[in-house]
Parts: sequence; structure tokens; C-alpha cells
Amino acid sequence: MEKRTGRTIRLQKKIRFAGCASIAGPMEGEGPLGSCFDQVLEDDLWGENTWEKAESKMFYEAVRLAIAKSGMSMEDMHFLLGGDLLNQLIAASFAARQIDIPFLGLYGACSTMAETLSLGSMLLDGGFAEQVVCCATSHFSTAERQFRFPLEMGAQRTPTAQRTVTGAGATVLTSKYGPGPYITHVTIGRVVDFGIKDANNMGAAMAPAAADSILTHLEDTQTRPEDYSAIFTGDLGTFGLEILRDLLIKAGVDPKDVLRDCGAEMFAPEQDTHAGGSGCGCSGITLNGRLIPELQKGELDRILFIATGALMSTVSSQQGESIPGVAHVVQIERGAQ
Amino acid sequence: MEKRTGRTIRLQKKIRFAGCASIAGPMEGEGPLGSCFDQVLEDDLWGENTWEKAESKMFYEAVRLAIAKSGMSMEDMHFLLGGDLLNQLIAASFAARQIDIPFLGLYGACSTMAETLSLGSMLLDGGFAEQVVCCATSHFSTAERQFRFPLEMGAQRTPTAQRTVTGAGATVLTSKYGPGPYITHVTIGRVVDFGIKDANNMGAAMAPAAADSILTHLEDTQTRPEDYSAIFTGDLGTFGLEILRDLLIKAGVDPKDVLRDCGAEMFAPEQDTHAGGSGCGCSGITLNGRLIPELQKGELDRILFIATGALMSTVSSQQGESIPGVAHVVQIERGAQ
Repeated sequence: MEKRTGRTIRLQKKIRFAGCASIAGPMEGEGPLGSCFDQVLEDDLWGENTWEKAESKMFYEAVRLAIAKSGMSMEDMHFLLGGDLLNQLIAASFAARQIDIPFLGLYGACSTMAETLSLGSMLLDGGFAEQVVCCATSHFSTAERQFRFPLEMGAQRTPTAQRTVTGAGATVLTSKYGPGPYITHVTIGRVVDFGIKDANNMGAAMAPAAADSILTHLEDTQTRPEDYSAIFTGDLGTFGLEILRDLLIKAGVDPKDVLRDCGAEMFAPEQDTHAGGSGCGCSGITLNGRLIPELQKGELDRILFIATGALMSTVSSQQGESIPGVAHVVQIERGAQ
Repeated sequence: MEKRTGRTIRLQKKIRFAGCASIAGPMEGEGPLGSCFDQVLEDDLWGENTWEKAESKMFYEAVRLAIAKSGMSMEDMHFLLGGDLLNQLIAASFAARQIDIPFLGLYGACSTMAETLSLGSMLLDGGFAEQVVCCATSHFSTAERQFRFPLEMGAQRTPTAQRTVTGAGATVLTSKYGPGPYITHVTIGRVVDFGIKDANNMGAAMAPAAADSILTHLEDTQTRPEDYSAIFTGDLGTFGLEILRDLLIKAGVDPKDVLRDCGAEMFAPEQDTHAGGSGCGCSGITLNGRLIPELQKGELDRILFIATGALMSTVSSQQGESIPGVAHVVQIERGAQ
């Protein structure tokens, strides 16, 4: 079966990015990528009476905007693939009730953006759809109170802690002819657990899964890090990124300056977010607001996008469980313009 | 594109059920389907120290058993698609760390079994895999304390309340030649919200989504209810099933005695579970323990399997939200044996 080498799928059709949208929170807007985003919220309630409703609104508006930017309409979309970090995926599913598109809810923690793109591109390549829209969202204030502490408590954060990004990224993919960039390969990750139990050190929990998926992808495609303009992980943060670098070097692959992380580049040092950004919106808005435009402008030529997820809940942590991770690889190429 | 008519996908390959496993809780084992299940637990902790760990063990063991029954091995499986009802999908993802198969986490509430089969069959039909394993699990004791009340409280239940089924259903699907039954069509559902706010009346919340997906499927395939041996919804329960019947009749489609519900048939009246079973394990163990064997024996010829999900969380209910529903349709045929 030529579509599959090892665990990596090589797409036969040109699956292209037809529309990308990014909506970011106030603090993300003040960061180094602020000018990349389509919309920066002035406050993170965005006119709603709860943060959860604001998060769901971000999902909806990002989907709407990505479709508008593609020049198509809701009716042209054959599937909506999306998810978020909230219990029972309420940000995505409450947005989806306003969106008349068949809905596939996905949960991959912070790997969600890559999971939606992987499945979406296979559904297009297989001829089951001609256009799909993919979306991932996260929100600092909803995640803090769900996973950590009430914001009102003002808890001290550890140096390895990351800040959940408030943001929604949405992508319209199509198999119809047009300019790139294109998704060319996907590698779905296995769940990997190295026994990390510190919920304030998610980067360390996710790095082994990222290493496993990246090494698999490089081997399956017979490529090396220097064959890519950049290898962007989702939200390992500064500590997790160094662990990943060490793991790759130990495996005989030195990624040099090609290896980067969306979370580590989301905020400026003076914003004092400790180890960087996290959340599935982190890689979602970086991909749609920054990486795809950079590919379109020719500033990047061929990248790996590896959103990384830490698979845990407050209950699993309370029950003494470690934190497994998962990471899916999406290879994106600029292609002929 | 001949693979798609309206919202319905017609699979080109024969996607067949190669191995089915069902693990059920003690009360499910005492019900009318008790003899159908591969394994009935004597107690719902199954040797673990928490119910959550027992639920994760059910997922793992169901996957393992379905693969064993298919005559294949873990290494033959190209994707694991699965989910559960717990926050952040911990039952599925903690099981997945012991399973060396690329993992796609799905969340569709109680529609999960149909979501895994829909996506799994498209991945096979598109040539991205030759074998996949699909699994959905739920557990009465974990669901009660997460969604409702601590069991120790002994809260009174309303007549429309359903009982979350303790059970895990797993299916190995393959595109390789062999005897049926086969998945022939899938219809992915839209999210539908009729404004139901009573979390003890999930059947009413899910019935409109089920009606939307069934009517769409019948129209797209130009079929009528009498063309099927049975149309099985997932877990509408006795009240939700009657609402669905009314909605279909109002739309000009009388399903007569073809329309049935896994939840309504899971428990005997004397088991006093009020409106019946629910949870994604309900349709999961019914499909794998009962419906597929009945198709294999020729007692059923052609069915629609429509697992139905209520998309809500405790937070959304506390914030005054209604409960949207989603339902995915999987058409399964006995085929030549």
C-alpha cells in the first residue's frame, strides 16, 4: 500500500490550505506574534458572561472567518473537525450547534490542531469530502479554573509552568486545485508515558511523545532535520523543548536550529509567562496566524508541525497517575505558487 | 464525487467486522443481554483501586480481546480510534499508553462508538490503513460522580433518568477480503439543539439529532425504514425513543417496529433503571455483543446503527445552557456469507 510507509501517510492529492483564521487573547496580542493574528480580543470575556462562552465564541468566529477567507461558504464544508480542552468539549460542541456542518469532535489535548489536520487531510485525500474546516481553541481563564486553581486565588506558579494560550485557530482545507501550501504527509502518534507526574511540567511529559513521532516521521520519509525550514512542536515550552532536543540527539538526530516550539515563541520574556505558552490554541493560532502566511510568503519552504498533547485530568492526577503524551506530525510544503 | 450523496458516504471497499469484543458490568450481565457479552465483571472495580482505573482496564481488555478474536495482532492495527465520557478522555488515553498503536482520541459523548466506526471505515476505504481497532467505554460509577452526584449520597432519580452502562465495546475493522458483516455507508451528524435543559432527560435532548441524521440518511440512500431489519439508536431510552418516533412520523416517515434503541433494551423492567441504559458503552456492547453476532447468524440482514450523544458538561448546565445532541449513522449489512 503505497499511501503508507511505516506509520506515515503520504497523501496522493494536493491538500491545500484555502483559508486560515486566528483569534487571540489580549496577552497573546501583546506578545511578539501580536501582528500576525486576524483578531486580538480587548478582554478575554469578549462580551459574554462566562469565559467558557467566550471560548466557544472564539471557536465559532474562527471557523466563520476561515471559511470567509477561503472565499467559500458554510454549505461548501463537508466536515467540521474540532476540539478544545474543556470537559466534554463544550467550547467546540456549543459552537458547532450554530454551524450547519457534520461535526467530528476530537480530543487530543494540546495535539488537537494536528489531529484535526491529519484526519481532515485524509478525509479529503480519500475523496470523502472536497472541503473540511478544522479548529482548535483554548482559553487561559477556563483552563486555569478547570485544571489548576480558581484565578481569584492568585496561586504562585512554578518556573516550569506554562500559560494556556487564549486563542482559536481554524483552517479550511480543500482537495481542489489552487496555490499552496499543501499538506503532504501525516504521522499519527502513539501514546507515550515516561512517568512524569508534575502537572506543572507538561513539556517534560510531552517531549517523549514528540521525539517518538518526529523520529518515526524522519525514518519513514527518509529525511533529516536539515531537509526542513523548521520543525515546530506545539507547546513543549522552553524546558520541554530542551528535553526533546536531548532525546533526539541521543537517538542520533541533531535538529540544530531547525527545532522550534510554538509555546516557546508565543510570549516575550518580559511577559513573565515562565516556560511559555500551552493549550491547543497555542499551536492553532501559530499555525494559522504565522506559519501558513510565512509559507505563503516563501519565508518557509517545508515544515513539520507537531502539536503535542498531555493526556491527563485532575482526577487522574489525584489518583496518582503519571501524564502520558501524544504528538501528531503534519508535513506542510510551500509548493509551486 | 460518487462516494458522497448529500451528507452520506458510500464506501467503495468492503469494510468488514473482523473481531468484536464486549465487556459488561455486573448489572448489565444480569439483564436480558447478559449471555451476549464476552465477559461480565463480578464487581465494577475489577481488581483496581478506583472506578476510573477499572474503566480504563475495560477499554484495554476490550481492545485486546477484539484483536485476539480477529486472529490478528496489535502490530497489524494501523490506528486505534476510541473515546469515553470521562474528562479529558482518561479511560481511553490511559489504556492507549499500553497499546502500541497510533491513537486518535474522539469525543462524541454517547455517539462515540458510531464516530469511531465512521472514521475508521473511511480511513480503511481511503487506503490509509488495512486494519483499525475502534473502542468506546463508559462506567456507571465514574459517570455518576463526574456528571451527577457522589454515589454515597443516594440521590433519588427521576423517571426520565437513564443508567450509564458499565461496559466497553471494541471492533476490529479491516478492508481485507473475508466474510461480513460489512459497513456500507456512514452519515456524520450535525449538532442539533432543541433547547432541552434537563440533564435527567438526555433522551429528549438527543432525539432531534437522531431524527435529523436518520432522515438525512434515508433520503441520501433513497431507502425507507422497512428496507432495514432494524434501526437501532444508541441510548435514547424509552422516553427519547418515543420522541424520536414522533419526530419521524411528523416528517412523514413511519418507522413502525423497525425502530429500536440499545438503551431501552439493555435492562429488564424489574431492574428498575427507569428509562433504560445510556453511556457510550451502551451502544458499544450492544453492537459488538449482540447486533454483529445477530447479523453473522442471519437473524438481522441490514441495519442502521445510530449512536447518539448529548453534548454537555456540568459546567455548561450550571451556566444555564441547553443540551445539544449529535448522532452518526452507520449502515451495516450482512452480505454474502
